[in-house]
Amino acid sequence: MDSAKIWGIIKRRGFIWPAVEIYGGLAGFYDYGHLGAVLKRKWENLWLKYFLSLGDYHLIDTVNILPESSLKASGHAEHFTDILVECSRCKHSFRADHLIEEKTGESVEGLTVQEIDDRIKNLKICCPDCKGRLGNASAFNMMFPVSVGPKGGDKAFLRPETAQGVYLNFRREFETLRKKLPLGLAVIGKAYRNEISPRQGVYRLRELIQAELQIFFDPDRFDNEVNFEAVKDYKLRIMFANDRKSIKEVSCKELTNILPKFYLYHMAKIQDFYVNVLKISSVKFRFYEKTGKEKAFYNKIHFDVELNMESLGGFREVAGIHYRGDYDLLRHQEGSNQSMEVNIDGKKFIPHVLELSFGVDRNFWSMLDLFYKEEEKRVVLKLPHRLAPKTLAVFPLVNKNGLPEKSREIYESLKEKFDSFYDVSGSVGRRYARMDEIGTPYCITIDYQTMEDDTVTIRDRDTTQQMRVKVEEIENRINEFMGFLEICKPCNNAKDNDS
Amino acid sequence: MDSAKIWGIIKRRGFIWPAVEIYGGLAGFYDYGHLGAVLKRKWENLWLKYFLSLGDYHLIDTVNILPESSLKASGHAEHFTDILVECSRCKHSFRADHLIEEKTGESVEGLTVQEIDDRIKNLKICCPDCKGRLGNASAFNMMFPVSVGPKGGDKAFLRPETAQGVYLNFRREFETLRKKLPLGLAVIGKAYRNEISPRQGVYRLRELIQAELQIFFDPDRFDNEVNFEAVKDYKLRIMFANDRKSIKEVSCKELTNILPKFYLYHMAKIQDFYVNVLKISSVKFRFYEKTGKEKAFYNKIHFDVELNMESLGGFREVAGIHYRGDYDLLRHQEGSNQSMEVNIDGKKFIPHVLELSFGVDRNFWSMLDLFYKEEEKRVVLKLPHRLAPKTLAVFPLVNKNGLPEKSREIYESLKEKFDSFYDVSGSVGRRYARMDEIGTPYCITIDYQTMEDDTVTIRDRDTTQQMRVKVEEIENRINEFMGFLEICKPCNNAKDNDS
Repeated sequence: MDSAKIWGIIKRRGFIWPAVEIYGGLAGFYDYGHLGAVLKRKWENLWLKYFLSLGDYHLIDTVNILPESSLKASGHAEHFTDILVECSRCKHSFRADHLIEEKTGESVEGLTVQEIDDRIKNLKICCPDCKGRLGNASAFNMMFPVSVGPKGGDKAFLRPETAQGVYLNFRREFETLRKKLPLGLAVIGKAYRNEISPRQGVYRLRELIQAELQIFFDPDRFDNEVNFEAVKDYKLRIMFANDRKSIKEVSCKELTNILPKFYLYHMAKIQDFYVNVLKISSVKFRFYEKTGKEKAFYNKIHFDVELNMESLGGFREVAGIHYRGDYDLLRHQEGSNQSMEVNIDGKKFIPHVLELSFGVDRNFWSMLDLFYKEEEKRVVLKLPHRLAPKTLAVFPLVNKNGLPEKSREIYESLKEKFDSFYDVSGSVGRRYARMDEIGTPYCITIDYQTMEDDTVTIRDRDTTQQMRVKVEEIENRINEFMGFLEICKPCNNAKDNDS
Repeated sequence: MDSAKIWGIIKRRGFIWPAVEIYGGLAGFYDYGHLGAVLKRKWENLWLKYFLSLGDYHLIDTVNILPESSLKASGHAEHFTDILVECSRCKHSFRADHLIEEKTGESVEGLTVQEIDDRIKNLKICCPDCKGRLGNASAFNMMFPVSVGPKGGDKAFLRPETAQGVYLNFRREFETLRKKLPLGLAVIGKAYRNEISPRQGVYRLRELIQAELQIFFDPDRFDNEVNFEAVKDYKLRIMFANDRKSIKEVSCKELTNILPKFYLYHMAKIQDFYVNVLKISSVKFRFYEKTGKEKAFYNKIHFDVELNMESLGGFREVAGIHYRGDYDLLRHQEGSNQSMEVNIDGKKFIPHVLELSFGVDRNFWSMLDLFYKEEEKRVVLKLPHRLAPKTLAVFPLVNKNGLPEKSREIYESLKEKFDSFYDVSGSVGRRYARMDEIGTPYCITIDYQTMEDDTVTIRDRDTTQQMRVKVEEIENRINEFMGFLEICKPCNNAKDNDS
C-alpha cells in the first residue's frame, strides 16, 4: 500500500513517527507511540513464543555497549563497513552501492572498494544532490564508537547486532544449562548502525531492534535432532540464486540434496510463522537465496526472508537464516584466549551456529503495509487479532440515560482480560471507523435494549456484521473468536491463508 | 543477605553476571542470563500492569540516541555531572563525594566543586589506591557522546534517562490521545551514565534499565482527579529530612498540610506496589525525603523509595517520586521553539509533571536480596509466585518403567499455560533443592502411584508440604495457588505482609 497513506494513519493514531521531531528530527531514528509500542510488544511476544518453543531455548538480555576487544575478535572492527563516496562540491555523503544500483537497477553487493570506484567512474555517476563530481570511494565503518570511563580509557562501540552478546555468553549458559546441545539463546534488543544515508521510513534505521535466535549445535547430529519428518512435505517458496525470474515452490524433501535437513526444517518453521501465525498471504512471502558474492563471508548458507510490501516497492528483506558454522565461537576463542570447545559424550568440538535473525522494525512496518486495506467506504487495518493493539472497544450508543454507566461497568470487567478501549465521542459510525483504522477486531455497543435484557451487540471488524450477545457471555465469545493460537503444531501448507 | 552468597547462586544458576567476562569484563556492565531475563521481564510486566492502570496511561518506546540540541535544552549538557578527582601519582579517578562520605559517614549531595575541593583538603583525603596526593576536583559530564552521520556531523548523546524521550513526544501523544489531562506516558528502556567509579554489582551501572512513568497534569485540578478518599487512611513509612533517626508511619490525611493530595496518593500507590504486589515486608520499605540541597533543583518535591538490603549494607534507593513542575516542558519549549502549552476548557497552560522513576536493575537485585533465605537444610529463593522464572517443575520419581514418558506428557500439557521445567537428573531431593534455589513455587512428581490412579504429588516451595492431586486437576490447583492478582484495589495497610 502507498507509503503516504499508511503514514497518514500511523502518525495520527500513534503508531510511529520520526524521533525528536520538535528539534527537526534525526535521520534514521523513529519513536513508537502508544499503539505502536503495544503492536511491537505483541509481535515480539508471538516471536518468542513460537521460536523458543522449537527447543529448550531461552531468552537472555545483554549489554548494548561492547568493548573494542570483543568486536575486533568478531571481525566487526575490520569488516562492518559500507562503501562511501563524498561529493567534491557539496560535501554530501552517499552509499556508493546504492548510487550504482539506482543507475543500473542491478545489485552490486559484495564488490570491493576498487571495483565500486571503477564502476562509478565508468558509469559517470555524479552527485544526486548537486551534480558535482564524486570523490574516491572509501570503506566506512558503521559502528558508533563510545569511550567508557572518566578518561575515556576503555574503547568500546554500540553493538552492531544483538548476536555478539549471545556468543559472549555462550560458555556461561552452556554450563548453566547442563552442557547440552542444541542450545538456543535469543536476544530482543537494540542494535546501532551509523548508516551513511538512512532511507525514508523504518526500513534502514541507525537505531534498530533485532530479534535473534542463535542455535548452537553439533553439525554431525543436528539433522537427526530436528523433526524433519514433520516438515518433509512442506512447500517452501524460494527465489534461487540461479533464477532471479521466478519463485519456486519446492517441498523440503526435494531439497535435501542441496541443503541440510536442519536448515530446511528451520526454513519451514519460519515460513509457517509468517503464513500461519502472522496470517500473511503466502504469495507475499519468499526466501531469497544469496549468491556467493552477496552473502557474508562467514555464512556457509544464507537465505533472506522477504515480504512483498507495496509501500516499499516490492519484496524486501525482513529476516534471514544464516548457517554461520563455527566462525563466531572460533573468533572469540582466538580473541579471548578462552576455550569455546565443548565435550559431549567424549567428542570435543566447537559448536556450530544457526542464526534466525529478524528486524523488528521492518516486521512492524510489514504488518501495517500488508494489513492496511481500503474498502468501499472505509479504511481498515486487518491485523491478526493477536497483534491488534486493542482487542475490543466498548461504546454506549448515546451518552445519557444510564448507558454510559452500564458501558463503563462492562468495560471495567473486560479490561482486566483484554486490551480494551472505551469511547463515547461522536456517532457510533465514527467510533467504528476509528477502531477500523487501528485494527480493533471487536466493538461492543451498549444500547437501550441492553438496559432491558442485558444483551449487547458485538461487531466484527472484518465482516462488519453484528451479533447480539448476553453480557455474561461476552468474555467467552471473545475468547472463542480470538481462537487458541496453535503455533507449535507441525507445519502444514494446507492451512495457508492465500487470500 | 550476604552479597557473596547471592552471587554464588545467581551466577551459577543463570540470573546475572558481569558482561563480556571472557574479555575480562567492562566495569559497570552486567548481562542477564536465562533466568534473570525472565525474572526481569515479569517484574516489568507487573510494574506496567500496576502503574498504567492508575489512569488511562500508556507505554511508548523511544530512541536511545538523542541529539545535543535536546539535551542542551533539558539541562543535561550543563548539569548532568559528578565531581571527579584524580590521583596525581597513580592517575586513578574517583567520585569526590564518595571519598568524603567514606571518610565522614555523612552525605555531601548538592555541594559545589569548590566546597568539595575545600572539604577534601581539610579532611586531608588522599588516594585510596596508592595514598598519593589528589588533584583538584572538577565537574565531569556523565553522558556518553556519540557522533551520528558519516562525517560525525550530528552531535548526540546516549540518553541519560528515559524521561526525555517522553517529554519530546508529549505534544504528539497529547494530540493523539484527544487532548486530555492527566496523561500518563511510560517508557521501559536503557539509560547510559559514564559513572566515574561504578560499584560492585548492579547498584551503580553505566548501562542501566529504567521504568519511568511521566504523568502530565493540570496543577489546579490533579488533587481532585486522584481518588484520595481511597488512600486517606493508608499509613506511609517515611524518613523525613528533619529527622534522620527514625522512620515515621503517618497516614496520608495527616500529611495534607505539607504535601499535595496527588503526591500522597502516588506515594500510597508506590508503597502498595512494593508491599502488596511484590510482597516485600513493609519494615524493609521506606520513603526518604530529600533535603533542599539533596534534591535536583528542578524538583519541587522529591522522595526516594528505599529498600533495606543486607547485601548493600542497609536502605538503598530503588525508585523516586519527583514533582518536576513545568520545568521539563518549559525547557523544551524554549529549546525547540515549539509551544508546549495546552488549552483545556479555555485555560491555557504548560502541564506539570509527576515522575515515578524506577531502576529496574536495582529492583531486580532487591528481589534476590530480600527473598533469599537460608533455612536449616536448604537455601530457598522465596520470590513472589508471579515473579518466579519457573512456576512449576515436573519430575519422574525414577527414570524408567514408563515414568519419564508419563512425566513428559504431563509437562507438555502444562508448559502451554505455565513457565515449566522438566528434570530427570539426580535424586528427587536434589531436584527439589535446585528448584528451591531458583524460587520455583511448585514441584510435581510422577511416581508409581501415578501409573495406578493418575495422581501426582505437588510440593509447595515455602512449606515443603506435599499434597496428592489428580492429573486432570493440576492446572486448576496451580491457578488457585497462584491466586488472582488484585493489584488495582484500594490501598489497605491491613493486607501488609509483615513477616
